[in-house]
Amino acid sequence: MTRCYNFCAGPASLPESVLQIARDDMLDWHGKGLSLMEMSHRSPEVVGVAEHAEQTLRNLLGISDDYAVLFLQGGASTQFSAVPLNLLGDKGRADYVNTGEWSKKAIAEGQRYGEVNVVATAKDTNFTTIPPQQSWQLGADPAYLHYIGNETIGGVEFFWTPQVHVPLVVDMSSTILSRPINVADYGVIYAGAQKNIGPAGLTLVIVRRDLLGRAHPLCPAMLNWKIAADNDSMYNTPPTFALYLAALVFDWLVEQGGLTAMEVVNRRKAQKLYSAINGSGFYSNPVELASRSLMNVPFILANADLDKQFLQESEAAGLLNLKGHRSVGGMRASIYNAVSEAAVDALIAFMQDFEQRNG
Amino acid sequence: MTRCYNFCAGPASLPESVLQIARDDMLDWHGKGLSLMEMSHRSPEVVGVAEHAEQTLRNLLGISDDYAVLFLQGGASTQFSAVPLNLLGDKGRADYVNTGEWSKKAIAEGQRYGEVNVVATAKDTNFTTIPPQQSWQLGADPAYLHYIGNETIGGVEFFWTPQVHVPLVVDMSSTILSRPINVADYGVIYAGAQKNIGPAGLTLVIVRRDLLGRAHPLCPAMLNWKIAADNDSMYNTPPTFALYLAALVFDWLVEQGGLTAMEVVNRRKAQKLYSAINGSGFYSNPVELASRSLMNVPFILANADLDKQFLQESEAAGLLNLKGHRSVGGMRASIYNAVSEAAVDALIAFMQDFEQRNG
Repeated sequence: MTRCYNFCAGPASLPESVLQIARDDMLDWHGKGLSLMEMSHRSPEVVGVAEHAEQTLRNLLGISDDYAVLFLQGGASTQFSAVPLNLLGDKGRADYVNTGEWSKKAIAEGQRYGEVNVVATAKDTNFTTIPPQQSWQLGADPAYLHYIGNETIGGVEFFWTPQVHVPLVVDMSSTILSRPINVADYGVIYAGAQKNIGPAGLTLVIVRRDLLGRAHPLCPAMLNWKIAADNDSMYNTPPTFALYLAALVFDWLVEQGGLTAMEVVNRRKAQKLYSAINGSGFYSNPVELASRSLMNVPFILANADLDKQFLQESEAAGLLNLKGHRSVGGMRASIYNAVSEAAVDALIAFMQDFEQRNG
Repeated sequence: MTRCYNFCAGPASLPESVLQIARDDMLDWHGKGLSLMEMSHRSPEVVGVAEHAEQTLRNLLGISDDYAVLFLQGGASTQFSAVPLNLLGDKGRADYVNTGEWSKKAIAEGQRYGEVNVVATAKDTNFTTIPPQQSWQLGADPAYLHYIGNETIGGVEFFWTPQVHVPLVVDMSSTILSRPINVADYGVIYAGAQKNIGPAGLTLVIVRRDLLGRAHPLCPAMLNWKIAADNDSMYNTPPTFALYLAALVFDWLVEQGGLTAMEVVNRRKAQKLYSAINGSGFYSNPVELASRSLMNVPFILANADLDKQFLQESEAAGLLNLKGHRSVGGMRASIYNAVSEAAVDALIAFMQDFEQRNG
């Protein structure tokens, strides 16, 4: 068996050691005679896994007891609805930043439940920037301010924290755990698991406890954060196997030295790849320098007619899933935590070779 | 490694051959150099798995093209909200049958969105019966009639189909795929995966296409069946690994001879176990004969002081998860598709031995 280098934007690469443990545990978890996924979510074993996952995550991110940590289902797209349903309250309005495709989806769901004020849009730059806060038009007394920490499709990332006097709500699906953050800066942090946490089908919500209990009367019970918090994320049967894999990923992150160590590696990986793109007359990335994502690196070839050949040859070289998102075309290399520096080096070597032969 | 006999009510036992395939595929699916769970949900591989899962399920259940088959997240509890949000429409009211714990939860969510008429309740019998239809008080022009096909906790099952002139909506979480059904009798069939389909974290919805497009304006996009149907259940990233396991379970069911063959085995398993209970002066089951679940068999010991000993000794004998639901106590043996006849035989032998020693 040869494991390839996988640059998929999500569901994304997982640490090989995590998959090995999952493989070895598959039919008989810890000598219990059955798979973890065949156990009751109320069993001491699964509750233990859930508690370990939460505690390890709290340690990694420095999450205080002021925050509830929820493991839910439905992806960030479900949270696009859950955020307004849980937070709009009597105010009925909220501020949103528009930095790309995921922002638009979040805004559309926000508008379903209340009045959305778009404080800034990067539309003028074809979503290749993070609009600076001094350009924002903040609304009057919004319930919260929402933004997408990293646009997975456009490859633009916030490297600063908005300074506002209302709860910050951020979708960190594609940046969570890639570097340290100050959780106390936020009211709510949420993330689909399928980039840096685990497999698709698990969703993380970190919510400041004082924000619980404001849900809209029509909020489905399963989208109500307070119900989830009151039931330790087991109001109904949670996705136990995905949670177990997430716990293994969290353990792996601890072994790597935690998020400070991950940031060092992630910055080096991204810097190498962007440098290779910048230094080339053949590849280009449209995003402004200060907002280039550490996780998702879109790039285009000087000649789009070569796209197909690039994808075929890279795949043959064991470099998988480099095709850009269908809405933007070109290429995209997603270099999440589990994508090694060796993978990035191999990609750069391939890109340079391809350019020499075709540039 | 010794695999135990697992009578868990859910997440439940899975076929050993399915787990073996999942184990062998874990790091390298079909020689592709990565795990299935590391692949894009838009990749031909994952789309192929999803299409195969749907087609195999359509063949197993005989689902016509008049119905959409949706693979969602959030469990049946999310559908307790999605049903009224998608179906109440202008009518604003619906009929519900109350046969136990899950009925009550479905009714509570129904009441959040409209007027619920409880046509019958089995409360008078402590939820040990399915009230016959001639006793029902049907509402005037309801949008639909909802019932729980099998109460996993109480162990009561519908063995007949209500005859009404409105769409039937049924939660089949714990009976789906245990025996053939006539899908055309229903407007909507839904089920959490974690009993007879696959691991927790996947939810099946089978919905007659003419019922799509009636969603409440405040229905979250992710709970809107029409959006899911229009996007082949990939409006956002689906739980791809759970879907892959479900596809393997469906293949396994085909190998077993399909649902007609499963019903023969399931009826034999249940008949053996109920006979052992009935023929004993020590064990008893409170459910009326005609409504005893083929899947979930609760039973109590003549002396509740022996419960702990029974559980300890059964576990030591490799018979796991026999503890009754926390809301009812006693014991419960869930004997889903993947629980073999040998497992049931072993349970009966243990029960008889325990009775001889302690009865």
